[in-house]
Amino acid sequence: MNEPGAVVELLALLALGELQAFGRLADDSKLAPNLTRRAVLCEMAAAEIHNFRRLADRITELGGDPENAMQHYTGPLEDYHAQTEPNDYLEALTKAYVGDGLADDFYQVIAGFLGSPDRELVLEVLHDDRYAEFAAEEIRSAIAEDPRAANRLSMWARRLMGESLSQAQRVAAERPELLLLIGSQDAGGDLFRRLTSAHTTRMTAVGLNN
Amino acid sequence: MNEPGAVVELLALLALGELQAFGRLADDSKLAPNLTRRAVLCEMAAAEIHNFRRLADRITELGGDPENAMQHYTGPLEDYHAQTEPNDYLEALTKAYVGDGLADDFYQVIAGFLGSPDRELVLEVLHDDRYAEFAAEEIRSAIAEDPRAANRLSMWARRLMGESLSQAQRVAAERPELLLLIGSQDAGGDLFRRLTSAHTTRMTAVGLNN
Repeated sequence: MNEPGAVVELLALLALGELQAFGRLADDSKLAPNLTRRAVLCEMAAAEIHNFRRLADRITELGGDPENAMQHYTGPLEDYHAQTEPNDYLEALTKAYVGDGLADDFYQVIAGFLGSPDRELVLEVLHDDRYAEFAAEEIRSAIAEDPRAANRLSMWARRLMGESLSQAQRVAAERPELLLLIGSQDAGGDLFRRLTSAHTTRMTAVGLNN
Repeated sequence: MNEPGAVVELLALLALGELQAFGRLADDSKLAPNLTRRAVLCEMAAAEIHNFRRLADRITELGGDPENAMQHYTGPLEDYHAQTEPNDYLEALTKAYVGDGLADDFYQVIAGFLGSPDRELVLEVLHDDRYAEFAAEEIRSAIAEDPRAANRLSMWARRLMGESLSQAQRVAAERPELLLLIGSQDAGGDLFRRLTSAHTTRMTAVGLNN
């Protein structure tokens, strides 16, 4: 996948994902029970926007127009967030935990399809483990304090996963060139298998059922 | 002003200001007319949260509790933002331009009252000029395109300044220790004079009337 147009298409999807994730986390930070926890969610958001800048700059370098290229994906990404608005701090954290994990798995598979320096760039904009650990710790202690939280958050995580897949199908239908690119490298459906199996592992790690 | 408690008090006010500014800019970024401009506002927000972290870490180093210390100032800062919610992108940019400039002037005066390393820290968390220039450029071109914008934004800037002063008076009344600290260093009212005169200069620079 060395055609610049195809790489631009893919980087634009990732860049818009980061920009939207910034807005989502910044909003959700208001659900935090205190200023200290709120600040951690704000810092998670700030990390997304730094990654956005790196991806957008690379699109420009490749001769693409970030604004234009990202516009193709605003519908599915906005709808994903509109359909999965967290009701409280724990739902917000679970959303970040599930979403960031899923995004990182997707990035890692995609990086394998790309040549240098895009491969390295995509691997560098993975989420910082510190934040996943923070979220996992908060979810675990909430469940320890009130075991009923496990059931509620498991259902929430299932909804997040379902909505992700539904919006991913929409992207695939609306931007067949992207699907072709991924499909040509992923004939056996390995991408989907990897994403769902890593998701299950992450759920189990925090005491949630898939 | 070398008493750790007094320094903690002041750093907590600055830290909460950064945390609130993050939330404000992240919200306001949704008013931007396109994704490129929206991303710049998100990056301005991200810079605030990095500065927040540095200030909060210093409070902890001084033996203070950032959560506790910041709580004293949540009322005035939240009310300032609630009273000055921008209606559109230009109002949002003008708010960032006026507010960041005012905050930086305040920081520079305050830095003069502090010993090392707090003086250097406060000078390092000043806003990046790039963002003020971006905002100024956007305001200037909006006025060039539609001269009526100048009047509307001048009135808006006056309201921002008025609300800042009103909330500053409230902080002074609720936290007299802070007022005493500043007053002991600022017997002649130099702080207020510097803030208002620099504000006038900034307004003129973008074609607004004070």
